[in-house]
Amino acid sequence: MLVVMSSHATPEQIDQVCQAIQRMKLTPHPMPGPTRTAIGITGNNSAIDARSLEVLPGVEDLVRVTKPFKLASREMHEADTYVRLPRTTIGPGTFTVIAGPCSVENEDMILRSAEFLREQGVNLLRAGAFKPRTSPYAFQGLGEEGLEILAKARQKTGIGIVTELMDTENADAVEEVADIIQIGTRNMQNFSLLKRVGLARKPVLLKRGMAATLEEWLMAAEYIMAGGNYNVILCERGVRTFSDHSRNTLDLSVVPPAKALSHLPILVDPSHGTGKRDYVPAMALASLAAGAHGLLIEVHPEPDRAMSDGAQSLDFAGFTRLLTSLRQLAAPLGRTIN
Amino acid sequence: MLVVMSSHATPEQIDQVCQAIQRMKLTPHPMPGPTRTAIGITGNNSAIDARSLEVLPGVEDLVRVTKPFKLASREMHEADTYVRLPRTTIGPGTFTVIAGPCSVENEDMILRSAEFLREQGVNLLRAGAFKPRTSPYAFQGLGEEGLEILAKARQKTGIGIVTELMDTENADAVEEVADIIQIGTRNMQNFSLLKRVGLARKPVLLKRGMAATLEEWLMAAEYIMAGGNYNVILCERGVRTFSDHSRNTLDLSVVPPAKALSHLPILVDPSHGTGKRDYVPAMALASLAAGAHGLLIEVHPEPDRAMSDGAQSLDFAGFTRLLTSLRQLAAPLGRTIN
Amino acid sequence: MLVVMSSHATPEQIDQVCQAIQRMKLTPHPMPGPTRTAIGITGNNSAIDARSLEVLPGVEDLVRVTKPFKLASREMHEADTYVRLPRTTIGPGTFTVIAGPCSVENEDMILRSAEFLREQGVNLLRAGAFKPRTSPYAFQGLGEEGLEILAKARQKTGIGIVTELMDTENADAVEEVADIIQIGTRNMQNFSLLKRVGLARKPVLLKRGMAATLEEWLMAAEYIMAGGNYNVILCERGVRTFSDHSRNTLDLSVVPPAKALSHLPILVDPSHGTGKRDYVPAMALASLAAGAHGLLIEVHPEPDRAMSDGAQSLDFAGFTRLLTSLRQLAAPLGRTIN
Amino acid sequence: MLVVMSSHATPEQIDQVCQAIQRMKLTPHPMPGPTRTAIGITGNNSAIDARSLEVLPGVEDLVRVTKPFKLASREMHEADTYVRLPRTTIGPGTFTVIAGPCSVENEDMILRSAEFLREQGVNLLRAGAFKPRTSPYAFQGLGEEGLEILAKARQKTGIGIVTELMDTENADAVEEVADIIQIGTRNMQNFSLLKRVGLARKPVLLKRGMAATLEEWLMAAEYIMAGGNYNVILCERGVRTFSDHSRNTLDLSVVPPAKALSHLPILVDPSHGTGKRDYVPAMALASLAAGAHGLLIEVHPEPDRAMSDGAQSLDFAGFTRLLTSLRQLAAPLGRTIN
Repeated sequence: MLVVMSSHATPEQIDQVCQAIQRMKLTPHPMPGPTRTAIGITGNNSAIDARSLEVLPGVEDLVRVTKPFKLASREMHEADTYVRLPRTTIGPGTFTVIAGPCSVENEDMILRSAEFLREQGVNLLRAGAFKPRTSPYAFQGLGEEGLEILAKARQKTGIGIVTELMDTENADAVEEVADIIQIGTRNMQNFSLLKRVGLARKPVLLKRGMAATLEEWLMAAEYIMAGGNYNVILCERGVRTFSDHSRNTLDLSVVPPAKALSHLPILVDPSHGTGKRDYVPAMALASLAAGAHGLLIEVHPEPDRAMSDGAQSLDFAGFTRLLTSLRQLAAPLGRTIN
Repeated sequence: MLVVMSSHATPEQIDQVCQAIQRMKLTPHPMPGPTRTAIGITGNNSAIDARSLEVLPGVEDLVRVTKPFKLASREMHEADTYVRLPRTTIGPGTFTVIAGPCSVENEDMILRSAEFLREQGVNLLRAGAFKPRTSPYAFQGLGEEGLEILAKARQKTGIGIVTELMDTENADAVEEVADIIQIGTRNMQNFSLLKRVGLARKPVLLKRGMAATLEEWLMAAEYIMAGGNYNVILCERGVRTFSDHSRNTLDLSVVPPAKALSHLPILVDPSHGTGKRDYVPAMALASLAAGAHGLLIEVHPEPDRAMSDGAQSLDFAGFTRLLTSLRQLAAPLGRTIN
Repeated sequence: MLVVMSSHATPEQIDQVCQAIQRMKLTPHPMPGPTRTAIGITGNNSAIDARSLEVLPGVEDLVRVTKPFKLASREMHEADTYVRLPRTTIGPGTFTVIAGPCSVENEDMILRSAEFLREQGVNLLRAGAFKPRTSPYAFQGLGEEGLEILAKARQKTGIGIVTELMDTENADAVEEVADIIQIGTRNMQNFSLLKRVGLARKPVLLKRGMAATLEEWLMAAEYIMAGGNYNVILCERGVRTFSDHSRNTLDLSVVPPAKALSHLPILVDPSHGTGKRDYVPAMALASLAAGAHGLLIEVHPEPDRAMSDGAQSLDFAGFTRLLTSLRQLAAPLGRTIN
Repeated sequence: MLVVMSSHATPEQIDQVCQAIQRMKLTPHPMPGPTRTAIGITGNNSAIDARSLEVLPGVEDLVRVTKPFKLASREMHEADTYVRLPRTTIGPGTFTVIAGPCSVENEDMILRSAEFLREQGVNLLRAGAFKPRTSPYAFQGLGEEGLEILAKARQKTGIGIVTELMDTENADAVEEVADIIQIGTRNMQNFSLLKRVGLARKPVLLKRGMAATLEEWLMAAEYIMAGGNYNVILCERGVRTFSDHSRNTLDLSVVPPAKALSHLPILVDPSHGTGKRDYVPAMALASLAAGAHGLLIEVHPEPDRAMSDGAQSLDFAGFTRLLTSLRQLAAPLGRTIN
């Protein structure tokens, strides 16, 4: 942390800032310069609300030097994290495809999807039993009945289950069925929920909030890890910008810095990212080339009749074609699709 | 709803779209034009996932005509909503100042704040017992002990309490103490929480999400109202943009369209909106002039020692000065501060 | 400038950074800390491309301490700038209303507008002879004929002229007629144009770019001032965000920090900021309360027949009502409308 | 175009809107519905300022159906555009790499760069003689001397030249030297400049504006094409968002919709898009996988000593490695690097 004093700051003002720093149990290091003084701060300052220094008389600006995340940080933990699941592992070297319909609509479509995906070599099925919908009048998911259908698909086909948890009430039920618990974009900073899944024994797929910076996203991962659950998988799904050519702005460029700052694996969701089926394959291929560790992608037996997100779901034929392209592209990149 | 067909669309494609509309139990109205056909849709289409039409062959675009919110909409409910509280009412004609510290730090500072505010004619105290913090290592609020302190302040001074609810577990406890239940910006689309406060008997102050459009915000209000709680108060608190001169971009320009589209009262939070104490008074005055129905504003007995948000809190003297300016400005606008 | 080294940085890497700083003719000040070393830089570093340090081995981050603008900065020039014009002055204490149609459509409507505005006590007419239009097929303005009409209005009524310059070709012609040369939002970083108006003898009204930070905006002002023209007036007109309730997001919250960082006067354009006539008066009043030094506002004799921007133009009656409200609000704020 | 009337609109108001449409020489088609009437508009309405209808009494909303761009539109011109240059062609099937330093610093570094690139099989050199810089105190480019150096490199090595034009004054000189004239992001809506290059006999590389929607970008291309120059190449280079992990937010997801809406080729600039050398290769590979037609990429003989943009420039070894990876990835995608 560095406090930059105004060029007009008096010695008394500099002194007051140093005292305020000491009250926080930190050490001030005043560094006089030609036009102004800067004051370095050392000590464990990750948790302080540094902005309170910002308003002291004579202070012009405040610059943070240390990253506020620890457990999620590559600086603290250099080796890549591999999230190990019954049938597969998510991490460097592979490219994990998690596919399936937006929501569990009925048993038949889930079983058909699970069997189809297993035949294609896909090990993880995504489908929501609890659905966060913008409108209270829209289909909200089948709830516990949906979880039972997912459990049946898992038992019958051996496919792993990725499904969303929306609140702490249903945490036990979701944790029971899921191989990976998904936290949705709207809940990325639902801190009560993050604390709860920090206690879960299942890995957590943490979607990026619609307006979250990379640092805020890693801080949300930190909440989960601080609870003792180190198996966190990041998932980019598009952010909110002025751009209106797609449903969201898929921020593929977050992949390299996320991998530089953190050891956690990162997936991409090109379905929500683009919102339009026609654009999904191009962005899926680009995710692989950009260095992501896998995809979360919507596939539906009959997209035109889907109860939600049909517009961005691939049908089985389209998904099969995409998988072929991904396999061709993975080889020269030294990766294998799993 | 209007489906715009491509200029190359075949009669068969137009037919297929009409059939898909009928499968949704709606009525299609094809309108041939010189270069392309558009298909109007009538019927109750607020809850359908129209984007599934978007991917049918020959469809170029889809334009929505009806607003998806009903109970929150001025079109359905023309008269302004007045939210009536024990000592005051929020709505047109008045300008309600809700003030207090960011968080309940201890009993003494809350009682001092409550007494000071009552002397100034302020009827509602804001203070958080449960605090959503970006870092898991930062002060998370006093929790239930904080609620007890707030209850004591209410009993001793008669001031009304506005405090945040972060999860359904604490809903009963917060509802017991609060005169207004606050839903924070990060929970604006925490739909499980919205449903819960839809059942509460206390008014709800709904902060705008950091990346929420006006329509999404009104849809969040709709969730609460659909549960039976019509006493919703909107609160603008700054949105996330590229702009970096302040903590968030306070979107005062949302006030006139919010009042045009909805009958609900709307407040402004200039403290979170700017993030810097020096800029708060100007934006507080601007909120009044822009037609907002009141303020949510941070005031602290000793901002420089605050455990959170000190940088954006006014001290007692600064708040007193602001209140004087607000009263002077309210008169020519035909408003009274309450 | 401060270079933050990684916690794994070697002494050799720290040394290399210091040498790179010296190659830039600046002085490095290494400051070892408990977990990492930071290197302060002193000397005149406003013009260096500091990002080249960012990629040296062992460097983690780079933080700038000094603001890059000088002439536009309040730190270098503490006293407020007053821009003095033949009939009026723009700056603190007053609130200057610049009004008129979007574009010069014909002589009659300009003369009617000028006469009406003079009767209302308005001293400056805005109207474009050269119009930047998104579509090449839209009305592009009357050009030189438009300038002649403006000159006639000036001569007949004594009103001052504010009109846009789009390119250096027309600089002499515009400078001849204008009392204030307007640089539009799309040209805020048209550096060739900024250099040209830096040589002009007339004040320049510099609109904020649609995606410009406050710092970039002040750097654009710096371009003009570096050429010798110190009479720069800033004008906020809405920025580009995800928010879709209005044409742009009018960023009123930029007014206080702009006044804190710079001595230049700042106006607000609520017409482009909102894009909708009904929302203009509220935002005009809010601009005054927020501390802006005036307005740039669209008024048209017959908005429904305007060739451009009719939707955001007030008619004469609406403008008269607004002016009355502005005068009532100005009094308690200690300001006078001019 | 569709005018949506309010549910309270009177028959007289509907009539007035129809008359206003007729005054624009267009045909209104009123369509009464259960809760409200919508009015379709037919005729050539691309150039009208439709927002003037928006403010008529009883009008609730206005929805545009036709795209405003014609010449740039795939709907009007279905076949892909191939931009043919002396030694290479930009368009489908190939992936064109345009590489070189940010600015022309001296003859030696340009000749070294040109020779190196030719050896690598690269046919086009990028380098700026005129540089748009945020600060008036930063290096502004060598100007005409820079153009002469580029001409010499072209003559000596046969490499094609891509260089930026910042103003109409230098249009003849740049057109003389350049094989492709570059229009920078800050000038995307400098309409005077667009009109000028619409008359040029050289292809134009049009960078996307920092806050430009896809539609605005294609309208800027339309300006150039309306002048008679059909050889326009789009170039995505990152947009301005809240995201701060990279210099800009590289919007790779614009590639598929740009190719769907327009027949023009589209390149990607991963150097400006990320702003950091380490992130460039990943995004370059992702651009190829996403379906872009090529790259504009910064390469410098000694990035750490570059006069501008060194932080985002690859050195020769890094570029050689990237080129190898691109060639490996191009094969399975059925593309060749040129």
